[in-house]
Amino acid sequence: MNKTLPVLEIFGPTFQGEGMVIGKKTMFVRTAGCDYSCSWCDSAFTWDGSAKEDIKKLTPDEIWDRLNEEAEGNFSHVTISGGNPALLKHMGAFIDILHTNEVEAALETQGSLWQDWFLKIDDLTISPKPPSSLMKTNFQVLDDIIHRLTEAGKTQQVSLKVVIFNEEDFDYAKNVHQRYPHIPFYLQVGNEDTGEDKNREDLVPRLLSRYESLVDWTMKDSAMNRARVLPQLHTLVWGNARGV
Amino acid sequence: MNKTLPVLEIFGPTFQGEGMVIGKKTMFVRTAGCDYSCSWCDSAFTWDGSAKEDIKKLTPDEIWDRLNEEAEGNFSHVTISGGNPALLKHMGAFIDILHTNEVEAALETQGSLWQDWFLKIDDLTISPKPPSSLMKTNFQVLDDIIHRLTEAGKTQQVSLKVVIFNEEDFDYAKNVHQRYPHIPFYLQVGNEDTGEDKNREDLVPRLLSRYESLVDWTMKDSAMNRARVLPQLHTLVWGNARGV
Ligand code: SF4
Ligand code: SF4
Repeated sequence: MNKTLPVLEIFGPTFQGEGMVIGKKTMFVRTAGCDYSCSWCDSAFTWDGSAKEDIKKLTPDEIWDRLNEEAEGNFSHVTISGGNPALLKHMGAFIDILHTNEVEAALETQGSLWQDWFLKIDDLTISPKPPSSLMKTNFQVLDDIIHRLTEAGKTQQVSLKVVIFNEEDFDYAKNVHQRYPHIPFYLQVGNEDTGEDKNREDLVPRLLSRYESLVDWTMKDSAMNRARVLPQLHTLVWGNARGV
Repeated sequence: MNKTLPVLEIFGPTFQGEGMVIGKKTMFVRTAGCDYSCSWCDSAFTWDGSAKEDIKKLTPDEIWDRLNEEAEGNFSHVTISGGNPALLKHMGAFIDILHTNEVEAALETQGSLWQDWFLKIDDLTISPKPPSSLMKTNFQVLDDIIHRLTEAGKTQQVSLKVVIFNEEDFDYAKNVHQRYPHIPFYLQVGNEDTGEDKNREDLVPRLLSRYESLVDWTMKDSAMNRARVLPQLHTLVWGNARGV
């Protein structure tokens, strides 16, 4: 099988700035296409047509080659991100190539679609979108995804992550956490300034003060006793630049 | 048995700013006393005599009571920190109380001493000190600690963390990581400004730029492919203030 995958960016090594493997040295493979259109999407170029001519149709082997052109021997972890990579049926073959080469695979997806290859992922972040995104979570689908992963004994390789922009989002996050209490749970500060290079000087204090507010809510709320609350580290270091 | 433990601080809930459970909502119990005297120790008050009159001798039950006075019902995780809590033979009884109450226990220690109660810890951070500390690691002891934890099947509840101030420290970290490749490994930016409230305005850009350098070294070095590299989040948010 030599099915291609629509790839928008391949870069690294850099560090994972978010979630369950925050700080981990990783390569990024960003796929094109999303079934959502979140109001604050920080990678709208993956689905809004603005980067259409940058999409490359690559086979799993070609993606592996490109990773090695970029950083041969200098990575052991690859993060598959989007858009929503769960749109792609044929990702499993790529993950197999990674594993054959003793490279781990992480995935970021919003939990709107299941694929059997989720079971191969080493670090699977499911990031259902809160009300401020203007998207609506299909909890039947999400229940099914969590159920399949739980049945397969994957709960320690999976996490839920909710991005928070306001108190309504925080309430939504609480519901998600309570619905799946056995899954490691992460709260993440929303990033309102998603334009590239928007005055970074200003950005860091703003992000830190928003993080402090989210910490504050989390500390006061006993429903969040088992949560982890994190900023986007890469945004603190590099602002909203792409491809670092 | 009602053996007491020398306790210097009990506070929280706050978030863990470092290492394997970074971002996690937790309470802190800081014990007094250390067998090291690192040149850049950020909690020298635990061993240099300056906070001697603040040390309380508390039984495990009394520590549990104090945690609840502080934050009853509002925590599910307690971090035992020092100084070096591994100096204390009788910590096991306290950890049993936590577990009875469905509260998890984390420990931070430099790996200079073994205690059987390490096996009860849910999140065990071993933080051997690099050359800039002016301390000398006893690798026979550290080998033995890692061996015992490995034999007990605890490798996923344990991590190694090395604080980096300079390139010599980075080389030391590489040795540690290569010596115990099966243990999750964290690099952490050293904090040179450990005085309280030292101009925080200035502190954040300084810490972020040091973090960026450490990221840079890590990304260039294939020996660090499996490492995670992190700043001290609490220092970014609150500077070097104590007790938050
Ligand atoms: S799910 Fe992710 S990629 Fe898709 S629109 Fe929302 S934020 Fe953007
Ligand atoms: S081991 Fe920790 S507490 Fe002890 S002197 Fe070193 S930094 Fe300070």
